[in-house]
Amino acid sequence: MFSSKLWTPISGGITAPNGFRASGIRANLKESGKPDLALLVAPEGAICSGTFTQSVIRASCIDICRQRLKNNFGRARAVVINSGQANACTGKRGLEDSLRITNTLAGLLNLKDEEILISSTGVIGEPIPMTSLLNGLDSLVNELSLNGGPKAASAILTTDLVDKQIAFEALLGDQLVRIGGMAKGSGMIHPDMATMLGFFSCDTSLPQDVWSAMLVKAIDLSFNSITVDGDTSTNDSCIAFAAGDPLDVDYFEALQEGLVITSQHLAKMIARDGEGANCLIEVQVEGTEQSEDSRYIARHICASSLVKTAIHGCDPNWGRILAALGNTGISFNPEEICLWIGPYQLIQAGEPIHFHREDVSKYIRQKLQGEYLIDDSVVIRLSIGNGSGKGFAWGCDLSDQYVRINADYTT
Amino acid sequence: MFSSKLWTPISGGITAPNGFRASGIRANLKESGKPDLALLVAPEGAICSGTFTQSVIRASCIDICRQRLKNNFGRARAVVINSGQANACTGKRGLEDSLRITNTLAGLLNLKDEEILISSTGVIGEPIPMTSLLNGLDSLVNELSLNGGPKAASAILTTDLVDKQIAFEALLGDQLVRIGGMAKGSGMIHPDMATMLGFFSCDTSLPQDVWSAMLVKAIDLSFNSITVDGDTSTNDSCIAFAAGDPLDVDYFEALQEGLVITSQHLAKMIARDGEGANCLIEVQVEGTEQSEDSRYIARHICASSLVKTAIHGCDPNWGRILAALGNTGISFNPEEICLWIGPYQLIQAGEPIHFHREDVSKYIRQKLQGEYLIDDSVVIRLSIGNGSGKGFAWGCDLSDQYVRINADYTT
Repeated sequence: MFSSKLWTPISGGITAPNGFRASGIRANLKESGKPDLALLVAPEGAICSGTFTQSVIRASCIDICRQRLKNNFGRARAVVINSGQANACTGKRGLEDSLRITNTLAGLLNLKDEEILISSTGVIGEPIPMTSLLNGLDSLVNELSLNGGPKAASAILTTDLVDKQIAFEALLGDQLVRIGGMAKGSGMIHPDMATMLGFFSCDTSLPQDVWSAMLVKAIDLSFNSITVDGDTSTNDSCIAFAAGDPLDVDYFEALQEGLVITSQHLAKMIARDGEGANCLIEVQVEGTEQSEDSRYIARHICASSLVKTAIHGCDPNWGRILAALGNTGISFNPEEICLWIGPYQLIQAGEPIHFHREDVSKYIRQKLQGEYLIDDSVVIRLSIGNGSGKGFAWGCDLSDQYVRINADYTT
Repeated sequence: MFSSKLWTPISGGITAPNGFRASGIRANLKESGKPDLALLVAPEGAICSGTFTQSVIRASCIDICRQRLKNNFGRARAVVINSGQANACTGKRGLEDSLRITNTLAGLLNLKDEEILISSTGVIGEPIPMTSLLNGLDSLVNELSLNGGPKAASAILTTDLVDKQIAFEALLGDQLVRIGGMAKGSGMIHPDMATMLGFFSCDTSLPQDVWSAMLVKAIDLSFNSITVDGDTSTNDSCIAFAAGDPLDVDYFEALQEGLVITSQHLAKMIARDGEGANCLIEVQVEGTEQSEDSRYIARHICASSLVKTAIHGCDPNWGRILAALGNTGISFNPEEICLWIGPYQLIQAGEPIHFHREDVSKYIRQKLQGEYLIDDSVVIRLSIGNGSGKGFAWGCDLSDQYVRINADYTT
């Protein structure tokens, strides 16, 4: 689903594109002592687009980003990211803290306040330890580097087990274009317009409205197609910078493809690293009238606790898949259902067909016991009609470990 | 929420009302060897109403019940219930099996086929062991008894840990009226129009359309307000019989109240006995324009995996409650939010207020470690505006045990 003949993976993550600098440090915001403060700075002339949570309850940093991008016509230059505290539901103090952070950074970077964006992730309702954070800003700026991508990618994590970064490059005409991305997210994952946190960089330039449209499409085909626990966050944000030589309009479609594969890579990394997850689940649905119906159904099945626990138990319990399929509010003819788990067909034209339960269990078990690989998923494929609509969703199994992580996670 | 000055609890369950007979036996449909076949027979002249799953994927028994109630103007006399196999997604064979069971029973009971309803619960996609079931029908009919309620209530269970039955009586004018009920359900609980399985009996008579309307209202205020895992079943059914002396129209409202408290009692028993559950959670929401909005929000919060795991961890993590509140699609002013957990207020007018975390944890822990009591719940109360709408929902904590039950449940 995200192979591309045009785009080749490269190293460097968010700083792979030309001129982008990043840093990541320990500012002692988290008790764990892990890195917790990151900065990404785009070259002069950068344009920026963002998509943000649709939640009524949202962090003040979301409002700051939205307003600045709007007032400034997408001319942002930097984003600072703190992990440990979401700074959501922290009232006026939370807003003032965010403004003070971007104001101090603007001074250090010699930029205007309006050019600085801010993202926060972590516990809801807890204020940011401001003394620690402000004390860290000097070294955060001093450590900015053209190779800083990996450090930034580490500093934005919370309960994530692995870093999530990727970069691709392609020769578009005479122009070598690179796209970099990093993301975080492991729990409270059921993004609505954007993931928990995702960041993109690109070293070409194009009209800001075109870049925005590309981002929206890429997010729909990636972050908006994953689910870990059905819970949408107060801080979901996705921010994308582009700066460089102007791109010929003939290559806009190629750039869109690059942005899609970059965001799909990061989205799958988030689903695979879902709290307590042991494997990636990919649900493919086809045959609806509209593709959005297929995508909705796929995500609904991916979010079913009973489907997720069945996979965790290596149990080809297709009844749970069909039960979830039946309850989306989207109508179809049950007699047209065909279902496969991996290479094994279980249902043909609505009727169960004979299959070797042990073979399917073994197929699932191999995925569960495998390495952290985002191209090795348990594939559930459904055909439910003759329409041309199709869609997919990514999720993960639901384990005892998910419960332990979330029962024990201190507020 | 279900105290009533009028209605007094009595023993006997579904057979407490006058003239209702029931039985429950072991027909060896389940490997566990537990009772698995039940029968309820209403007195002559009974009327019957039913509500059923809205799922596109549904068992053939659902279609049989719907058709018979419609064709026969609600003149059903009996319902047979098998547990172990849901007989959903079993194709034509499943339908033929259901018809054969009701046909054989009609002969034994000297009733018409159309007067017999059937409900099945258990594993989806597995056919009913017909030889065992048909062999059991003779003794099922022979054991019918005016005291058979408790035996029937046991025979309809699957992963349930406790029987779910209740009866109430009230003196309506000169007439002593009794309502009995039994239900089952523990997983795949997020009913849409009806619970997994619920049955009611009542020894008064009234117009069938009035009885139907009463049932719909009672279900909305009970089974449609609970959630265990957000998964809706293929077999959700609720069937209510009434037979006896005609009830004076002056007492219709009183009867409605009785039906509501009976169904609320059973619904809370299901939520409390949710797979792996250690406590009942009650979410109360008020201040919306419409009560249905409050009810929708309450159920959405009750279904959040992160809220459920927080309760399981005795963690007053109100951020998760607000995150779930923000994502229902229903708009409100975040600055009007007030939140309580039990007697402790955590949010006032959108701002967190100081509270003793240990006190709230202790409050939750007491509920978690308590006995199976449906009147002792963790209460989450939200006020989100000035509207007169209010609603509630019941659910349970999400434990490691839920995952183990569902990962290990053999298809």
